[in-house]
Amino acid sequence: MRRFKITIEYDGTSYYGWQRQKDHVSVQQAIEEALAKLTHETIKIEGAGRTDAGVHALGQVAHFDVVRDITAYRMKEGLNFHLNDHGISIVNCENVEDDFHARFSAVSRSYCYRIFNRRSPSPLEANRSWHIKKPLDLDAMLEGCQYFLGHHDFSSFRAAACQAKSAEKTLTHLSIQREGDHVISVRIASPSFLHNQVRIIMGTLVQVGLGKREARSIESLLKTPDRKRSGMTAPPYGLYFDSITY
Amino acid sequence: MRRFKITIEYDGTSYYGWQRQKDHVSVQQAIEEALAKLTHETIKIEGAGRTDAGVHALGQVAHFDVVRDITAYRMKEGLNFHLNDHGISIVNCENVEDDFHARFSAVSRSYCYRIFNRRSPSPLEANRSWHIKKPLDLDAMLEGCQYFLGHHDFSSFRAAACQAKSAEKTLTHLSIQREGDHVISVRIASPSFLHNQVRIIMGTLVQVGLGKREARSIESLLKTPDRKRSGMTAPPYGLYFDSITY
Repeated sequence: MRRFKITIEYDGTSYYGWQRQKDHVSVQQAIEEALAKLTHETIKIEGAGRTDAGVHALGQVAHFDVVRDITAYRMKEGLNFHLNDHGISIVNCENVEDDFHARFSAVSRSYCYRIFNRRSPSPLEANRSWHIKKPLDLDAMLEGCQYFLGHHDFSSFRAAACQAKSAEKTLTHLSIQREGDHVISVRIASPSFLHNQVRIIMGTLVQVGLGKREARSIESLLKTPDRKRSGMTAPPYGLYFDSITY
Repeated sequence: MRRFKITIEYDGTSYYGWQRQKDHVSVQQAIEEALAKLTHETIKIEGAGRTDAGVHALGQVAHFDVVRDITAYRMKEGLNFHLNDHGISIVNCENVEDDFHARFSAVSRSYCYRIFNRRSPSPLEANRSWHIKKPLDLDAMLEGCQYFLGHHDFSSFRAAACQAKSAEKTLTHLSIQREGDHVISVRIASPSFLHNQVRIIMGTLVQVGLGKREARSIESLLKTPDRKRSGMTAPPYGLYFDSITY
């Protein structure tokens, strides 16, 4: 029995998220089916984090154990052969110690969120970014970022369905930069996140960028938990699970 | 009767190219149908250049005449309303003089070609770039570019079906640069191009980058026309009609 760690890129558009579900196709299921074809074993994989329907990944990580003797290189090539045209690619594959756990060994997770900021829509950005028609005030958004950084109670920034016991999280990185003329790219990192935390932070920052809310209002949202006062949950298709540090 | 100039972005994936055809859906037809809905007139549009099936555009230009009194702003918004979810967007719209012609008034056209250079495929780059698994030698490709620049007989770099009387063209710009870790982006400009010229140039440059051909072999391809000796026609989905200068 050998343990493998895989790094996965996927286009989340046609999947009902990462986690295996009864009636919908998930990324986890697609990879497990490819694994079954390759190894003739029934293998359950464990991901570093769940992504919602429509959310993409550049560097999702998962681990699993295989009985059959197969090299990491053959595993990667074989999985990519079976995943061809499924919108999923194994970017890296390596053998790891038996105590490595994709979820519990992770010390930091980082996400990227892409906004397309121009009046006319961009067909080439469809399902790849959140289209905001009105110009965003980047300076105001940058000011808003400062409040989020550090250790806070993020109760105002979690989904109603979030099952985490504590809403206290530590944001270690939050930056905004322009890419080309119309894309605004936000990077955010933390040891772990609450359900929908990144998307509600984004929805709130966009309100700031549109002048619908003052940047410093974020301070009170963090001090006095109230999901009703924070911004909308930004759409999933602008979100990318970027990388995980172990 | 007023003449309009529109600048168009499109995802070419699901279209049989720019030009209207009998049995297939083209970008031209989709825009003409949107125009008919908006103006209740039967309007034929003229594009700056034809793009093949699968080829994208960031700045295709077209012109047309409309009887109905409508502002350029309303035209743009109205067309985008009807083109919503068709993979086509009107990025700019303005009124122009009656002697403006999208094709004949153009003084320069520029294309961009994207290569994704990594062993594992990228689902998020599907239909957006040419996937080359083996590492490309960028220095060798840059050397190859130098031979193409300037005025040459491009007979070795045109499709068999190309209908241009002369194969003599003048390349005014050809540059290569990396974007991020895995994308190689090529920019190319000329007053006009032969059919498939950019794609055959790309197929030849990639042979150079893979070490399958010497950069200086391009010199003899330009001096002694022979389509059989030049590279393959690169796939359409890496090609973007970038901009047109008037």
